[in-house]
Amino acid sequence: MKVAILGYGTVGSGVYEVLNSNKEIIKRKAGVSLEVAHVLDLRDFPGDPVESVLTHDVADIINDPEVKVVAEVMGGVGAAYKFTKAALEAGKSVCTSNKELVATHGSELMKIAQEHGCRYLFEASVGGGIPLIRPIMTALHGDDIVHMKSILNGTTNYILTRMSESGAGFNEALSEAQQKGYAEADPTADVEGHDAMRKTAILASILEGKAVSCENVHTEGISSVTMADFKYARKLHAGVKLLSVIKRENDMISAMVAPFLVREDNELFGVKGVKNASLVRGNAVGDIMFYGSGAGKLPTASAVVADMADAARCVAGLSETKQVPAWTEEPAKVIPFELYESASLVRVAAADEQAARKAFKEIKEVAPLEGEFAFLTGVMTEGVYEKAVSGLNIISRIRVDFTE
Amino acid sequence: MKVAILGYGTVGSGVYEVLNSNKEIIKRKAGVSLEVAHVLDLRDFPGDPVESVLTHDVADIINDPEVKVVAEVMGGVGAAYKFTKAALEAGKSVCTSNKELVATHGSELMKIAQEHGCRYLFEASVGGGIPLIRPIMTALHGDDIVHMKSILNGTTNYILTRMSESGAGFNEALSEAQQKGYAEADPTADVEGHDAMRKTAILASILEGKAVSCENVHTEGISSVTMADFKYARKLHAGVKLLSVIKRENDMISAMVAPFLVREDNELFGVKGVKNASLVRGNAVGDIMFYGSGAGKLPTASAVVADMADAARCVAGLSETKQVPAWTEEPAKVIPFELYESASLVRVAAADEQAARKAFKEIKEVAPLEGEFAFLTGVMTEGVYEKAVSGLNIISRIRVDFTE
Repeated sequence: MKVAILGYGTVGSGVYEVLNSNKEIIKRKAGVSLEVAHVLDLRDFPGDPVESVLTHDVADIINDPEVKVVAEVMGGVGAAYKFTKAALEAGKSVCTSNKELVATHGSELMKIAQEHGCRYLFEASVGGGIPLIRPIMTALHGDDIVHMKSILNGTTNYILTRMSESGAGFNEALSEAQQKGYAEADPTADVEGHDAMRKTAILASILEGKAVSCENVHTEGISSVTMADFKYARKLHAGVKLLSVIKRENDMISAMVAPFLVREDNELFGVKGVKNASLVRGNAVGDIMFYGSGAGKLPTASAVVADMADAARCVAGLSETKQVPAWTEEPAKVIPFELYESASLVRVAAADEQAARKAFKEIKEVAPLEGEFAFLTGVMTEGVYEKAVSGLNIISRIRVDFTE
Repeated sequence: MKVAILGYGTVGSGVYEVLNSNKEIIKRKAGVSLEVAHVLDLRDFPGDPVESVLTHDVADIINDPEVKVVAEVMGGVGAAYKFTKAALEAGKSVCTSNKELVATHGSELMKIAQEHGCRYLFEASVGGGIPLIRPIMTALHGDDIVHMKSILNGTTNYILTRMSESGAGFNEALSEAQQKGYAEADPTADVEGHDAMRKTAILASILEGKAVSCENVHTEGISSVTMADFKYARKLHAGVKLLSVIKRENDMISAMVAPFLVREDNELFGVKGVKNASLVRGNAVGDIMFYGSGAGKLPTASAVVADMADAARCVAGLSETKQVPAWTEEPAKVIPFELYESASLVRVAAADEQAARKAFKEIKEVAPLEGEFAFLTGVMTEGVYEKAVSGLNIISRIRVDFTE
């Protein structure tokens, strides 16, 4: 069966490599042989084996009736959106790692796929190579998912791990991440939590079956996390992680991305470096965790290729799972941010101790750094927290996830 | 849609509970409503809500044309085998947690399901509630699985965790596990590794696509693990785990269950108590881990119910995945045990030091307990190891999994 790849960047070249090097094993496991007929990229790659199948014109792919499955690994929401739509409308299944496109146009594209008897699959868009979306969508049908707490961005997890282990400051750890190729020259999307936000919107939409947009995900990055926060974390036998937290209550949902203190006995504490993980709590299954490489050329390609094999099986009649959109365009009922609940570690100047004690009734003191007063609040809503701190000079506040 | 449950023991009552308490969420997620029409058990349950649907006669289920999906949670390979076969032959899909039956008759039952247009599903047979079998079978089509290292038995992991944390001896930790309901009165199947062996045979068969029988799984239990082993483990920054290790090389497979030293930096080190986990290495995806409750009433029921929902979706025409047997009856090519490779921690009497140094050329000394000489061997085959120790008085040998 002929397939095509849109984009020959990091992930695209990984998809090309995996399809070629694992050709035999894919054939044995999926029952279909996948042949790359076209690779779309605007650039030329002289001397690269891809040359023989390279095209600069997407029409070569859309108009090739033998191409049944397309990998969209270009990124962005411009050309990627247009090409994906055209491919689906031509009855070709599209498999993608493009979280931005899935987060913004996912339900529309799944609907188009449904109408045209093909599929829009996006396992690679969240958690890279970790099988996460498919298990959530197919393996937990018996469970009411209570919450999902995840580390979804490898760059920030690497930076936080380095800050914790080597005592490096944020800027130093960021430079190191850039040198190692774990962070981009412009690290904003990772560091400010936008990447994790998009992935969170996708997961929340799946859990709820309705659209949770990026605007619905309260997002804070890690650029204001300091060494002092790590010193406090250690006192509390905890680490600092950029968590994606999705909670479901009745038929409402809350979703946020923010730095959290996570205790040593929490499964997510041990997730180091560029690894990702997702801890899912179901009312029957309890806590289950999915862990692995959340990014990178080959892990991400692995997930794209698994989706391509799945789509190809459907075309070949070996498996026929109708595309049922994982979520509809109907907006999910979102809990207002003022009602989000969490506990926090709060640091104020030593001089503010009495004011802080007055503002927060129940606090748990934490041995402070010099010149500071530090305490854990109880679990409270954002609204109540904001009111309490309104007259205080906060040095820093970091939420804590110490719940059982 | 009407469903039935064979067996109202721990898992069976859990399935009944989850189907009833999560009825609405199952309907929303799977698109089908599941109604328990019959529960088979030889016992009576006066006053239990199950009474209204209880039957002592399996014919009530087999002959009810409205029952399309059956949960087999009786255990064993006698009546469970007979009833499963009868249900499949009547075109009813069967979902099970019965690892013994899957390990011994899995390929035959999948073939019968295929011939009768229904399905035989067994997610709950390995790793309890952890989605493990479905991801391996569907989400890793792009990868060549190199190895799979797992903790598949909660009882032994609990015992080893207690021995490590409280300094309790094996018998004391076993009693504690029995008191807490984590071990049975006759703990042989767990402690001697038979339970993990059956699960390993299932996983190995799936990975290879051919039958790996229990006889093909080299199995050692944990009853000979002592406090001294834990003392050595600590010196090596390691713990002791009962691992299931499956390795694939070319088109051959090796599978074993045995106690291993696992270093602190290994993801499986942190798997404590009754939790299970499986670390899968693919040649593209790298290492991914699945973690959660490997046993227990509700977690196991969760997996059975997810399979039931999946089977029901097929019956309802919402999804049609043809049953392709996960493995055939053809025996897998198994690497002979003498060729299995690993390193070991070996303890001999201090008097045997010179003999040990002579027998093993390359060793790494480990600070010994009094009166002993202890060392790590390099990676060698079982055959070479057996030859080397033939003249030595071994106090204990434990394999180590320190590989990258």
